[in-house]
Amino acid sequence: MDLKPTKPLTGFIELLPAQQRCFDYCANRMQEVLKTAGYNRLDLPSIERAEVLTDKDNWDEIETQMYLFEKGDTKMGLRYDGTVGLSRYVAGHLNDLVFPFRAYQFAKNYRGERRQRGRYREFWQMDIDILGIENLSANYDAEIVATLLRVYDSVSEFVGGVKVKVGNRKFWNAMFEYLELDEKQSRELFILVDKRDKIPDFKDAVIEIIGDKKAEIIENIFDKGYKSFIGKSEKLDTAIREMDDFIETLQDMGVKNAEIDISVMRGHSYYTGIVFEFFSTKYPEMLALGGGGRYENLASKFSKTKIVGVGASVGVSRLLVPLMEENKIDLSQFENNVDVAVLVMGNQNARYSMNVVTKLRENGIATVSYLDADKKFKNQIEYADKIVARFAAIIGDDEVANKVVALKDMKSGEQKSMSVEDVIKTVKVK
Amino acid sequence: MDLKPTKPLTGFIELLPAQQRCFDYCANRMQEVLKTAGYNRLDLPSIERAEVLTDKDNWDEIETQMYLFEKGDTKMGLRYDGTVGLSRYVAGHLNDLVFPFRAYQFAKNYRGERRQRGRYREFWQMDIDILGIENLSANYDAEIVATLLRVYDSVSEFVGGVKVKVGNRKFWNAMFEYLELDEKQSRELFILVDKRDKIPDFKDAVIEIIGDKKAEIIENIFDKGYKSFIGKSEKLDTAIREMDDFIETLQDMGVKNAEIDISVMRGHSYYTGIVFEFFSTKYPEMLALGGGGRYENLASKFSKTKIVGVGASVGVSRLLVPLMEENKIDLSQFENNVDVAVLVMGNQNARYSMNVVTKLRENGIATVSYLDADKKFKNQIEYADKIVARFAAIIGDDEVANKVVALKDMKSGEQKSMSVEDVIKTVKVK
Repeated sequence: MDLKPTKPLTGFIELLPAQQRCFDYCANRMQEVLKTAGYNRLDLPSIERAEVLTDKDNWDEIETQMYLFEKGDTKMGLRYDGTVGLSRYVAGHLNDLVFPFRAYQFAKNYRGERRQRGRYREFWQMDIDILGIENLSANYDAEIVATLLRVYDSVSEFVGGVKVKVGNRKFWNAMFEYLELDEKQSRELFILVDKRDKIPDFKDAVIEIIGDKKAEIIENIFDKGYKSFIGKSEKLDTAIREMDDFIETLQDMGVKNAEIDISVMRGHSYYTGIVFEFFSTKYPEMLALGGGGRYENLASKFSKTKIVGVGASVGVSRLLVPLMEENKIDLSQFENNVDVAVLVMGNQNARYSMNVVTKLRENGIATVSYLDADKKFKNQIEYADKIVARFAAIIGDDEVANKVVALKDMKSGEQKSMSVEDVIKTVKVK
Repeated sequence: MDLKPTKPLTGFIELLPAQQRCFDYCANRMQEVLKTAGYNRLDLPSIERAEVLTDKDNWDEIETQMYLFEKGDTKMGLRYDGTVGLSRYVAGHLNDLVFPFRAYQFAKNYRGERRQRGRYREFWQMDIDILGIENLSANYDAEIVATLLRVYDSVSEFVGGVKVKVGNRKFWNAMFEYLELDEKQSRELFILVDKRDKIPDFKDAVIEIIGDKKAEIIENIFDKGYKSFIGKSEKLDTAIREMDDFIETLQDMGVKNAEIDISVMRGHSYYTGIVFEFFSTKYPEMLALGGGGRYENLASKFSKTKIVGVGASVGVSRLLVPLMEENKIDLSQFENNVDVAVLVMGNQNARYSMNVVTKLRENGIATVSYLDADKKFKNQIEYADKIVARFAAIIGDDEVANKVVALKDMKSGEQKSMSVEDVIKTVKVK
């Protein structure tokens, strides 16, 4: 019989145990920050009706990347981010939730993207949102950015520092109006600016859409800076003031690593105001680590109630997995998940040793037992060594007769007979 | 425009925030037991190649329940349990892992089942396995059952007690041989016995497959007990002895709630020896809460190395969600996720209050801020009340001028001006 492949599908992540412990440790720390900030964890379905996921108003790239399928007569698909499910959930629970409602999700999402560094087809992402009915003050935009910076900071010992770049969708809308572009031109230009870094002949592409003269104005945004447009139109002024205020509020809150970058757009079509993206300062080659922004009507597909909000996502797989794969994270503190390996010499001693194991575990000591009791001592101690156990508790006929265990410190090699109670004390002290 | 439905797809779970906190609390406690028992957490892909999931040797029900689909040229599907992925993973990492290898997964699985109480199409399940190369002592079967009983025990305050019923696949194989059944008859009878509780005319169905006389013998297993077959064949004797030994080992380990139930089969085709199922003692109407057993060749599809093991699954959604939906779990301790709600009177005080919020959060105090600072005090204090905050920290012009906050105990109604440092002390003491 032909053997089936043991590798996961391209773009799907599989970690070794120590990597997984590092991932889990970081993910827990990040979530602790959100819990302390009063965000409610939501766990929403990974599968949604296709009609909920797809949207003719959705002009961004995601439409081509979805995993869609049928089961029975129902068309459905896998979630690609947390926003669609959240909109549906909140619209369906308007009376069950207290607004402003703080929510976070930590879930797997699915996108059939082309493979590149840091992009996966299945990835863990945190989605963080603050939602209000009808109105929500701009203060929340600052609070969410400050909170996310603390989220990243909670794992900075592993991934280094992060900075945030702030843009404003209103600036571009005002600009398109100022340039008198039609809807089609606006949309095409938007997509172009969003991908500016990746397009080598950016200027030519802009000229093709809006002509020479207007393209020069676009060029000026990047060359002379967005501030050179102060006074050009009321809407441009408002948008610029909003960004400046936002940065000032952040600075007042002690945020030092925030700056305006007018080319920050965020791909999704639902953003309407301030948008922001997080970048690694230690690894500038990494893609944006996360980002988000303000939306003015989240759940219009699901409810007549106007739900406004500010939301963001943090790509946890994208942040951690490439660094682990490239050995840029020191995993030594995650190599070990066991305090004591109980080794059993002879099957007649298995039951006694299983009771020892139970007592150690009940005292919160991470304990495994090697229960192939007919194996030689050499094999058993090798096992304790390989799993990097701190101690081996060796149990043979003598130990059972005297109701003790022989506790060996795997680092020093020191070995001593003692009662289970003394084992507990010894292991806990170390 | 027509509004889209706000309900999730049938069979998919969505919890409210307090329910979710209860679910997460229980799931964490259960996982803590496994971590203390030295199980390595694995997070495997939710999507596998279709050829990995489907199997012509797989004669159990799951074949009809899978979510299968295509993306590009690749046929794939969603994981329906943790075993398939684990087999593939272990076969692909034989040199990276230390055996016996203890693994657990806590993941969402997908099955397009008919809807019934406690059955979901997307559900959280723990998969727990101990794997060995070539051999693995029967002691591990007992250890995994004892560990799982501790897993259930960690949440017994919410879900009540659990008992374990033990069967043996070898008993049935010996019985089929004793009755001289062919492969087709054996398989049909196996499926019938597995579903005995659900089949009203069980006896007739058995007669149809194996005839009157042999059906009477099957009847005797349940009427007179499996022990009445001692001495009938060597293989039957061995199988019965194995079950008795197993129960004895468990009792020696202090497990009181274990019993033999020969009709326990476990649906999956890969089990080869001892099998077991967990049932609620408090809610006998609940389906099996989990179960597992011994398999002799887990990864034969992926590797020539013989990987033997004992594994089990715990249906976490199945355990918790029906009880929460039926209000059988007291959620009062999960209603609240906030210690302090900071209320801001006037937007000029927003930045000061955001600094207060940051300080409280940095001290591990779960804090939210109400940042729509133009709202009336009445609205703001109502918010603090609705989210069941323990304290409200009220900040207006006077508080900012004096660098204090007005801390209101939401239960007693008592209110006092104090510094942020004193707020931290007051909230932490309570």
